[in-house]
Amino acid sequence: MTERIKELLNDKNYTEIKKLLADENSADIATLLEELSESEMTVVFRLLSKEYAAEAFSYMSPDAKSQLIDAFTNSELSAVLSELYIDDTVDLVEEMPASVVKRILANTDPETRSEINRLLKYPSDSTGSIMTTEFVTLGEEMTTEEALEYLRSCGVDKETIYTCYVTRKTKLIGVVTVRDMLVASKSATMAEIMETNVISVSVYDTALETARVFDKYDFLAIPAVDDENRLVGIVTVDDAIDVMRNAASDDISVMAAVTPTKGRTYLRTGVFELVLVRVPWLLLLMISSALTGGIITSFEASLGAMPILTAYIPMLMDTGGNAGGQASATIVRGLALGEIAGRDILRIVWKEARVSIICGIILSIANFAKMLLIDKMLLGNESITLSVATAVCMTLAITVIIAKIVGCSLPIGAKKLGLDPAVMASPFITTIVDALALVAYFNISVRIIEGMM
Amino acid sequence: MTERIKELLNDKNYTEIKKLLADENSADIATLLEELSESEMTVVFRLLSKEYAAEAFSYMSPDAKSQLIDAFTNSELSAVLSELYIDDTVDLVEEMPASVVKRILANTDPETRSEINRLLKYPSDSTGSIMTTEFVTLGEEMTTEEALEYLRSCGVDKETIYTCYVTRKTKLIGVVTVRDMLVASKSATMAEIMETNVISVSVYDTALETARVFDKYDFLAIPAVDDENRLVGIVTVDDAIDVMRNAASDDISVMAAVTPTKGRTYLRTGVFELVLVRVPWLLLLMISSALTGGIITSFEASLGAMPILTAYIPMLMDTGGNAGGQASATIVRGLALGEIAGRDILRIVWKEARVSIICGIILSIANFAKMLLIDKMLLGNESITLSVATAVCMTLAITVIIAKIVGCSLPIGAKKLGLDPAVMASPFITTIVDALALVAYFNISVRIIEGMM
Repeated sequence: MTERIKELLNDKNYTEIKKLLADENSADIATLLEELSESEMTVVFRLLSKEYAAEAFSYMSPDAKSQLIDAFTNSELSAVLSELYIDDTVDLVEEMPASVVKRILANTDPETRSEINRLLKYPSDSTGSIMTTEFVTLGEEMTTEEALEYLRSCGVDKETIYTCYVTRKTKLIGVVTVRDMLVASKSATMAEIMETNVISVSVYDTALETARVFDKYDFLAIPAVDDENRLVGIVTVDDAIDVMRNAASDDISVMAAVTPTKGRTYLRTGVFELVLVRVPWLLLLMISSALTGGIITSFEASLGAMPILTAYIPMLMDTGGNAGGQASATIVRGLALGEIAGRDILRIVWKEARVSIICGIILSIANFAKMLLIDKMLLGNESITLSVATAVCMTLAITVIIAKIVGCSLPIGAKKLGLDPAVMASPFITTIVDALALVAYFNISVRIIEGMM
Repeated sequence: MTERIKELLNDKNYTEIKKLLADENSADIATLLEELSESEMTVVFRLLSKEYAAEAFSYMSPDAKSQLIDAFTNSELSAVLSELYIDDTVDLVEEMPASVVKRILANTDPETRSEINRLLKYPSDSTGSIMTTEFVTLGEEMTTEEALEYLRSCGVDKETIYTCYVTRKTKLIGVVTVRDMLVASKSATMAEIMETNVISVSVYDTALETARVFDKYDFLAIPAVDDENRLVGIVTVDDAIDVMRNAASDDISVMAAVTPTKGRTYLRTGVFELVLVRVPWLLLLMISSALTGGIITSFEASLGAMPILTAYIPMLMDTGGNAGGQASATIVRGLALGEIAGRDILRIVWKEARVSIICGIILSIANFAKMLLIDKMLLGNESITLSVATAVCMTLAITVIIAKIVGCSLPIGAKKLGLDPAVMASPFITTIVDALALVAYFNISVRIIEGMM
């Protein structure tokens, strides 16, 4: 498809391009536009019908949007802006650099501009920031026939028409779906058929909390109200999907010690940008792992006397890191899905304590057998004595227990302090557990080995 | 609310319970039922109206469902089953143990039973397994008035009525939304107003691929067709949300070396079950980290001569693990979102190579300065010579480069082999990188330090 368009562009056969694009979905047109060069993109974009152009525009990446805006005349820009949904315009204003924002605001009508400014006041992770103010409100005395007629006349431009809201003096009193209207008799009023037990969210709830409401109830749209139950916007399911997807991606990034790159795909992210989101974490973790090195140095004498102890340091550190990582990932995931909350901390620690004792014992027994049967008997390593094996395995059990308890507590603690739980996951836990494991290791070894010798 | 219901149950005031529950959303009723004891749950469930009961049932956890089914009489069971959507029934059959499935199948009508059997034939991660066969099809000559009338008479029981499908001899030829019908004139036919460029998915596509189509196009439902473009089902947006959420959770679990627990929350998972999904991975990783221990043992002589080298092993291992983890998490996330594919492998390795060289150099310089300024001058560790610092920092740079290239290649390689890329993320990469880092460390150290001495 892209190749065909490029050929047609070369031949200046614009009529054929128009014909080709007329049948395409606007999300596909957006993908196609991004595969063209900057100048080709502008030419093709101008061939799109007004409504299609705005829709395709809203699906494009921030980079492509900014290139297009640079190429637009003021009247082209204001034509696209007038067709965009208000929440897409607000997203655009948030994504663009200041100079572009100035041009955008200068080319919108005063009403839209004040709407944008109002929406921009909501914190960027709040429900207010993802909602749209384009929805259908109905009066309670309207009949279904009147309501359907009203939808016919005005509803088509609204982002979603299938769920309508019944208000009394701007306060939300009920919800009616088009489905309800279709089944009801033509003379039934909204007051009669509306659902009065309305599930709504607050504009100040976080966007993720609102997305979880969608996950729970399977709605297509949820009304967002202010502190006085006035209907100020609606959140649609497609925006909720975006929020959930980004939250999951961000969690994965943060747990792997990478600063999340908002809305930019890997292949479109530059090398220096990738370095920038990774290197500060690597430096921080590198410096904190010096602690572990320091502990080893301070026990150099013991290691000199028993060099075999060194060989089990990686295994102890790795197993501790893995055991802690398992616990923290499980907790971060539970917190993200809203399955567990800060108040469950005691139940969680108690559960992890039991899990870790069982895991610790199983691993210790396996390792004890492995050290004596494989390392000593099979591979003939004479330095492995019963006391060395006991010291390593006792440390292993203690490390697993510490790792799991630290691993589950830190993310919940972070959540309670209002921090991102994912930041406290894997790498930090590994560093902390490593240090604790080594202290345990050397203390236990010195005691056991001295005691037995 | 739960407390109030428990009180009313004690007083046997069932009328009041009925009244209380009448206003609640069925998802909330499901949550409430799960907070009651098994016998209380059954009593309250029997108080629900038939339609509500089935809806609440579909929102409940597998455990609670199986408890209820055990308590049901056959006629109660068949009443609930007759109200369930077919895709929810199929999910139920997949979740329940064999004995319960037998009872379920015995209590459904023959038509539903053959439908269930047909749907069960699709692989569990395919689009066929999440689709529903309850959708509205229209003929191409129907007028909008006829179509809306048809929706009024039959559509309300269908899982989604807002998107209707136009078929010719069971082949999908177009899509019409209720919105289109409301705006069109009453006499317009479906053939005139339908969208003929239909975006559909194959029943054999994976469920995750289909979920990504929702993410791209913001649809409420997508038609699923077989190899001959016959319409066999539709996937609704709420099912797509479930798929995306579970996929993200599973990725997080697998990357932390935990076997995913399908659809069970942390607090509902038993201690032994948690041990079972964690301990095999810990054992496997513990045994593979023995490799690292083996490498250390084989270089025991060098370590004995230069004990200071031991102190930097944790830092090198941690940084390697973190650098590899960053790359693998980024790639796993990109693969999950469909942003990158197996064929991009060369571009990705080339990008990671450049990123890793820059990261490696920055970290090496920082560490060199830290070793000489802080460890040697400030803390007065005399064992740190220029050659030791050079050896550690060269190894560090090489480790970061190896880690990032291994970290990005393994998940893509796994994907190409049809394995889960997330399995190849974090812990396995750490083990491999640890081993490579240590081999590099000892070889470099021996050469540099011997060369300089």
